[in-house]
Amino acid sequence: MIRIGILGATGYTALELMQILLRHPEVEITALTSRQEGEVHVTDVHPRLAGRLDLRFEGLDSDKLADQTDCIFSCLPHGASSQSIMPLLDAGLKVVDLSADYRLNDPQTYADWYGLEHRDPKRLASTVYGLPELFREQISKASLVANPGCYPTSAILALAPLLKTQRIEPTGIIVDSKSGVSGAGRSPKLATLYAECNESIAAYAVGTHRHTPEIEQILTVAAGSTVDVIFTPHLTPMTRGILTTAYSTPIDKVDQETLLEEMRAFYRDEPFVQVVDHLPATKDVAGTNFVHITVRCVKDKIISISCIDNLIKGASGAAVQNFNLMYGFEESTALG
Amino acid sequence: MIRIGILGATGYTALELMQILLRHPEVEITALTSRQEGEVHVTDVHPRLAGRLDLRFEGLDSDKLADQTDCIFSCLPHGASSQSIMPLLDAGLKVVDLSADYRLNDPQTYADWYGLEHRDPKRLASTVYGLPELFREQISKASLVANPGCYPTSAILALAPLLKTQRIEPTGIIVDSKSGVSGAGRSPKLATLYAECNESIAAYAVGTHRHTPEIEQILTVAAGSTVDVIFTPHLTPMTRGILTTAYSTPIDKVDQETLLEEMRAFYRDEPFVQVVDHLPATKDVAGTNFVHITVRCVKDKIISISCIDNLIKGASGAAVQNFNLMYGFEESTALG
Amino acid sequence: MIRIGILGATGYTALELMQILLRHPEVEITALTSRQEGEVHVTDVHPRLAGRLDLRFEGLDSDKLADQTDCIFSCLPHGASSQSIMPLLDAGLKVVDLSADYRLNDPQTYADWYGLEHRDPKRLASTVYGLPELFREQISKASLVANPGCYPTSAILALAPLLKTQRIEPTGIIVDSKSGVSGAGRSPKLATLYAECNESIAAYAVGTHRHTPEIEQILTVAAGSTVDVIFTPHLTPMTRGILTTAYSTPIDKVDQETLLEEMRAFYRDEPFVQVVDHLPATKDVAGTNFVHITVRCVKDKIISISCIDNLIKGASGAAVQNFNLMYGFEESTALG
Amino acid sequence: MIRIGILGATGYTALELMQILLRHPEVEITALTSRQEGEVHVTDVHPRLAGRLDLRFEGLDSDKLADQTDCIFSCLPHGASSQSIMPLLDAGLKVVDLSADYRLNDPQTYADWYGLEHRDPKRLASTVYGLPELFREQISKASLVANPGCYPTSAILALAPLLKTQRIEPTGIIVDSKSGVSGAGRSPKLATLYAECNESIAAYAVGTHRHTPEIEQILTVAAGSTVDVIFTPHLTPMTRGILTTAYSTPIDKVDQETLLEEMRAFYRDEPFVQVVDHLPATKDVAGTNFVHITVRCVKDKIISISCIDNLIKGASGAAVQNFNLMYGFEESTALG
Repeated sequence: MIRIGILGATGYTALELMQILLRHPEVEITALTSRQEGEVHVTDVHPRLAGRLDLRFEGLDSDKLADQTDCIFSCLPHGASSQSIMPLLDAGLKVVDLSADYRLNDPQTYADWYGLEHRDPKRLASTVYGLPELFREQISKASLVANPGCYPTSAILALAPLLKTQRIEPTGIIVDSKSGVSGAGRSPKLATLYAECNESIAAYAVGTHRHTPEIEQILTVAAGSTVDVIFTPHLTPMTRGILTTAYSTPIDKVDQETLLEEMRAFYRDEPFVQVVDHLPATKDVAGTNFVHITVRCVKDKIISISCIDNLIKGASGAAVQNFNLMYGFEESTALG
Repeated sequence: MIRIGILGATGYTALELMQILLRHPEVEITALTSRQEGEVHVTDVHPRLAGRLDLRFEGLDSDKLADQTDCIFSCLPHGASSQSIMPLLDAGLKVVDLSADYRLNDPQTYADWYGLEHRDPKRLASTVYGLPELFREQISKASLVANPGCYPTSAILALAPLLKTQRIEPTGIIVDSKSGVSGAGRSPKLATLYAECNESIAAYAVGTHRHTPEIEQILTVAAGSTVDVIFTPHLTPMTRGILTTAYSTPIDKVDQETLLEEMRAFYRDEPFVQVVDHLPATKDVAGTNFVHITVRCVKDKIISISCIDNLIKGASGAAVQNFNLMYGFEESTALG
Repeated sequence: MIRIGILGATGYTALELMQILLRHPEVEITALTSRQEGEVHVTDVHPRLAGRLDLRFEGLDSDKLADQTDCIFSCLPHGASSQSIMPLLDAGLKVVDLSADYRLNDPQTYADWYGLEHRDPKRLASTVYGLPELFREQISKASLVANPGCYPTSAILALAPLLKTQRIEPTGIIVDSKSGVSGAGRSPKLATLYAECNESIAAYAVGTHRHTPEIEQILTVAAGSTVDVIFTPHLTPMTRGILTTAYSTPIDKVDQETLLEEMRAFYRDEPFVQVVDHLPATKDVAGTNFVHITVRCVKDKIISISCIDNLIKGASGAAVQNFNLMYGFEESTALG
Repeated sequence: MIRIGILGATGYTALELMQILLRHPEVEITALTSRQEGEVHVTDVHPRLAGRLDLRFEGLDSDKLADQTDCIFSCLPHGASSQSIMPLLDAGLKVVDLSADYRLNDPQTYADWYGLEHRDPKRLASTVYGLPELFREQISKASLVANPGCYPTSAILALAPLLKTQRIEPTGIIVDSKSGVSGAGRSPKLATLYAECNESIAAYAVGTHRHTPEIEQILTVAAGSTVDVIFTPHLTPMTRGILTTAYSTPIDKVDQETLLEEMRAFYRDEPFVQVVDHLPATKDVAGTNFVHITVRCVKDKIISISCIDNLIKGASGAAVQNFNLMYGFEESTALG
């Protein structure tokens, strides 16, 4: 039985994580931390867990966590996450970090986009990016995994095969993404009130969203040359889901069926990626760890489209997939 | 041209009010106050008004308002509203108060339910309740009108005809209401986040909602004997609308068609109440000042059902209807 | 491995059922029938199942089904369901019927409410009603289980404890229920179009809904005397979930804490019923087989409130719970 | 008083149109036709109009319409619309056609995209495209106006200023649009059921949507050279609204502030177009005839973003705006 601690367990990703882990036959959740809540019972914050998990929140005490747990999932915000994780790694725990802290490998890029000096630059450069579809081997050997952002997961999976096979130009790629509101977190803000989001769609953070360098870094690895993207996220009136519509330019003329074939080949052995012929909808993957992807050729552009559940494949499902790889469990355990 | 000031102009009812008043040929909005916002432009808070209203928020200065305006709509919270209104009434302005401050006529009941000593008990006892369907005469002569609450509007209009005609027992009436989320206001709160409200319905404030004594007071006037209700509000995943399903017990046997006839007669000359044969939906009145009502007999109970838009007939539309009566304009001006 | 056939596998309950059964370690889905679709692949109808279930729809052939399967879940409409089930029962298969066909035990009541002569009146009178919380013993021995309706599940679980303990009058009970739209099925109808349901709530089938006699029959068993209810369903703008707010009259004076205690005692050993102190929301049980229930005393009424996911505890989750009992598997298998 | 007839008055655009015309002081609705409904009362189809419009549907009889009406709004589908309009134009009526029948000026393009031989090719070539922002002069003199499609309105208004001022390349423009579900009409279809659309977003008709040639034709006029676009519509879980995010390539280096200035200048005198600095949301224009537009420079791309209400500025509001111009009324009459 692996004993699990969850840091920052009050938000939506943590709730999702707990529900997945409660189905996992090889783990036990033994600690939940929160900065805001006192020692309240987890069901006071998450009534959904009534009768399913009998734990109280506690403050974050590294020594105690090192005693109580074997593996940590951090749902803390960036900055707070690496600060809390460092002593736990030093104490020998394994960690899946759902924050952005260890995703970028260049401290300067981190400082530029997140406005913070990174506290742990040495680990930063060498941390594994937790996207099994690209880095399964490394994940299975890692003690610390940087769990990908939700938008990057959807964008990278839609574009990596096209870049790896040199099908598309690495520059000028347009990533138009539409996300549900849960991606904005559970802290009360005007912008995420029901009456502000319902019956409305809008772009936000155009040209400035922090997931941009993450998408570019990983796609650059996939392409073998510098990739740049124009990334436009949109807030969509639904709780869950991300649809990414990515527009790229073919290097040589190619037809749609060939691209679909190549994509199917690329993801053939992946347990959670389905290349589909139809145009996928986010509802097809809501509540699951699956990704549905398709591709279209329109005039002189290639359009690749992917769907994920932002809280599962875009966060907590991916985290458990990584955990399973790190511990040698069947990769899809608790995710079926 | 009547010059209008709006107090507490940052919320949803104020935004709705401004949009209605912009269609009113006899008024000009000349002042907007806000406690939180500085002197920002109204479109920074309400982008919907871009190009339609060129005003900045200001602090609440009674002397200045008395100079700038003829009539005040107060969208302030209870407590703050009466405090701000008192000097304006003394200065000779007319006022429509959208808060709860002047709705109850007993200061003790006010203190019990709102947890505040009322500052203006003398006016409290004599203020007109702004429901034209019951108090049109008095409204047209008033300087201060207490605009009804959203739930009370829907409940009173569904039940008053049955009580006035002695068709139903005045006690044990069940008022099961379902409201959109905009009724909870525009202040960021966990409970009204999109991801908390979407895809979910729940009862709240069971047995303790402050609209209970308001419903009972006005229905008691209508019935001529003490009415008590069990009032259960529900938060429903939609921005606007209230549906009230009211269950009462007939005094004597009566059939549905008779009740529908009597209701039609009761509301015959009302510009905004439609008694319908079908079961009405809130979408039928969304964005309008209309009320749709029907009635059913099931076993030994009478079920009366009403629909309103909580922000219009339940707040700002009713406020303008009252304003029109107070100033002798055609009652439906700007509300068509 | 129990081989499973699903009749009428194109709708929402069938899709939900397949997803639950795919997590069940002791079953294999071996046949799917459909009347409308030809021999299309299941993922053409349910893209959500892409890569997860490789079956084609087939026409309903009893002999073939008797060969291919051990147990049948029928998601057919009433009338069609009993007609199709009869030969399968005769062939020795076990059946969970999700239609209304075997829920009522009186053929005349069935004829009155469903407008059909029942084809199988003998079995009708003796079929077990598949609500484990009341009939676990009988279910575990049954070959045919009538899976409860969604509204009845929510209403019965909220009221049965109060009736069994003689706390409330068996007559004049008001059941005000709010359901998501998936309950209306997947056949295209004007009334369930997105633009008709979104941003709107309405009552429907007031006094005439077919779940009324089902609620009354089972509550009458629980109470030991004739129960009658006034049942008002409402269509609510969400895909899933039922909230039932039930109003009843106490026989003797009783306080809320006592009622909560008694309810907790009643459901103490139930794996899926949680009696909670707070007011539950449908989102707390969405996607799960759980029921959250609470109770309040307001003036002279008792209000009991329950939440379920209409497609899971209100249909397919309950069906698998029944299946587990019928086959002696752990009751919560695949439902955790 | 202009007497108005509405053809095909059962759908969402017709309902919206009636509500707008009911506020218009210079018109009277005198005839409503429908092919499916018999002579039912309009409120049986549109309960929202209860007490507001007392008319029955009738079959489409050209002679009768020529007697009863002065001006026709056709909400019929393409094909049916031109067929019905032709005799009415011959009889001297003025017509606003909300279908696609007279939008394209080349009969072959019409045949290619709509799969129909055009019945009225002569008028096709000369019909005015009813976008006042580009063709006000011509509209004011026209007897027949082709009301623009909803997507084209949003795309053209976002791109025309950039093309007219030669700021962007006319080819390779990406138009990524997100529409509410009401755009798909009111005929029951699986794809537009609540439970299919809610909590989901998906692209549809990628590379094949019929609004593509319409967007290209009008933008080509604006640009003075052939424009081609890659148009990707998305179905979004909301009833109303279109957000278009358009990606184009600048011809010469230019900064964002200059583009915003030029756009403000372009639309300076437009009553319904607001160029805003912030990123607009569809809720800001829902229920209005307004368009909110902004522009951003990101890396080597220009992103222009527009919002409309698809049923108003994208259909019936525009139709009344055109009507006002055709009859010499104040352009914003009934649209304020």
